[in-house]
Amino acid sequence: MSHTTQNKKALITRVRRIGGQVASLERALQSDADCDSVLQQAASIRGAVQGLMSLLLEDHLREHVAGSHPDALKELEPVMAILRSYLR
Amino acid sequence: MSHTTQNKKALITRVRRIGGQVASLERALQSDADCDSVLQQAASIRGAVQGLMSLLLEDHLREHVAGSHPDALKELEPVMAILRSYLR
Amino acid sequence: MSHTTQNKKALITRVRRIGGQVASLERALQSDADCDSVLQQAASIRGAVQGLMSLLLEDHLREHVAGSHPDALKELEPVMAILRSYLR
Amino acid sequence: MSHTTQNKKALITRVRRIGGQVASLERALQSDADCDSVLQQAASIRGAVQGLMSLLLEDHLREHVAGSHPDALKELEPVMAILRSYLR
Repeated sequence: MSHTTQNKKALITRVRRIGGQVASLERALQSDADCDSVLQQAASIRGAVQGLMSLLLEDHLREHVAGSHPDALKELEPVMAILRSYLR
Repeated sequence: MSHTTQNKKALITRVRRIGGQVASLERALQSDADCDSVLQQAASIRGAVQGLMSLLLEDHLREHVAGSHPDALKELEPVMAILRSYLR
Repeated sequence: MSHTTQNKKALITRVRRIGGQVASLERALQSDADCDSVLQQAASIRGAVQGLMSLLLEDHLREHVAGSHPDALKELEPVMAILRSYLR
Repeated sequence: MSHTTQNKKALITRVRRIGGQVASLERALQSDADCDSVLQQAASIRGAVQGLMSLLLEDHLREHVAGSHPDALKELEPVMAILRSYLR
């Protein structure tokens, strides 16, 4: 069982939403949308992908590195706070 | 005419490839792929999105901010070198 | 005259403050400060350096790439909004 | 004993070197160095601070989250590979 099983549904929903944003950016480029709108859409996709990475790293660190031990999970907190702010 | 027209085809190809990577990540999650493989795929998508942002910013800066003036384009170079290294 | 002359004083103040934060982190390491405090201090320094980069890039783009032309400066805005959010 | 004790000397050397780079950037600004040189120096400082953060996060994750357990350390590897590439 992979570490993503527990949150599998939520992750898939998130990935599917990113897929929708990418398809929408493709249509914007096809229809010569203005430059600002293209930049904004790309920036939103980047933000969504960073959020996904942050979640995947957190899941992996919790389950496979901290092994769900309470002390280790507590020590994980300051790291995750920093990673979340990096991966905005 | 948007600033993306000139490179429109190349950008659309790039966006479509990202769409394919996102669809593949969704399948990996659906089929309970192992954690490392999921992390690697997500990291590749992030890299591809960063590369896309870097291209879009460069196009915009060249055409709309530097206005394609040779001196301004030359001054844009050190900025782009830095942005490319940030958006890896 | 370099592009930094205009804002020279403000930039120097900012750089000097970063120097103070770095000296304080060195003292924290010397005195075996706890891990969380060291991480927080390093994260603050990183944020301050990102803010400095953002300012320097903006100055350079405004003065040397946009050449202070009103239209070019207006087109610079969406780029700077994105860079500022990247360089937090 | 803090998690940084083991590598304390190496960390302090690294922080002191960053302090030297910051002092050098301050002098460059004072003496109206040209814009490119200032940008390059600031970019080097940013890279050095990112490398420091990466080290501090790795130390903390190894010692306090993985608790130095071999299996947990092995699972930490793909995470650190990703973080190192983010914090370049």
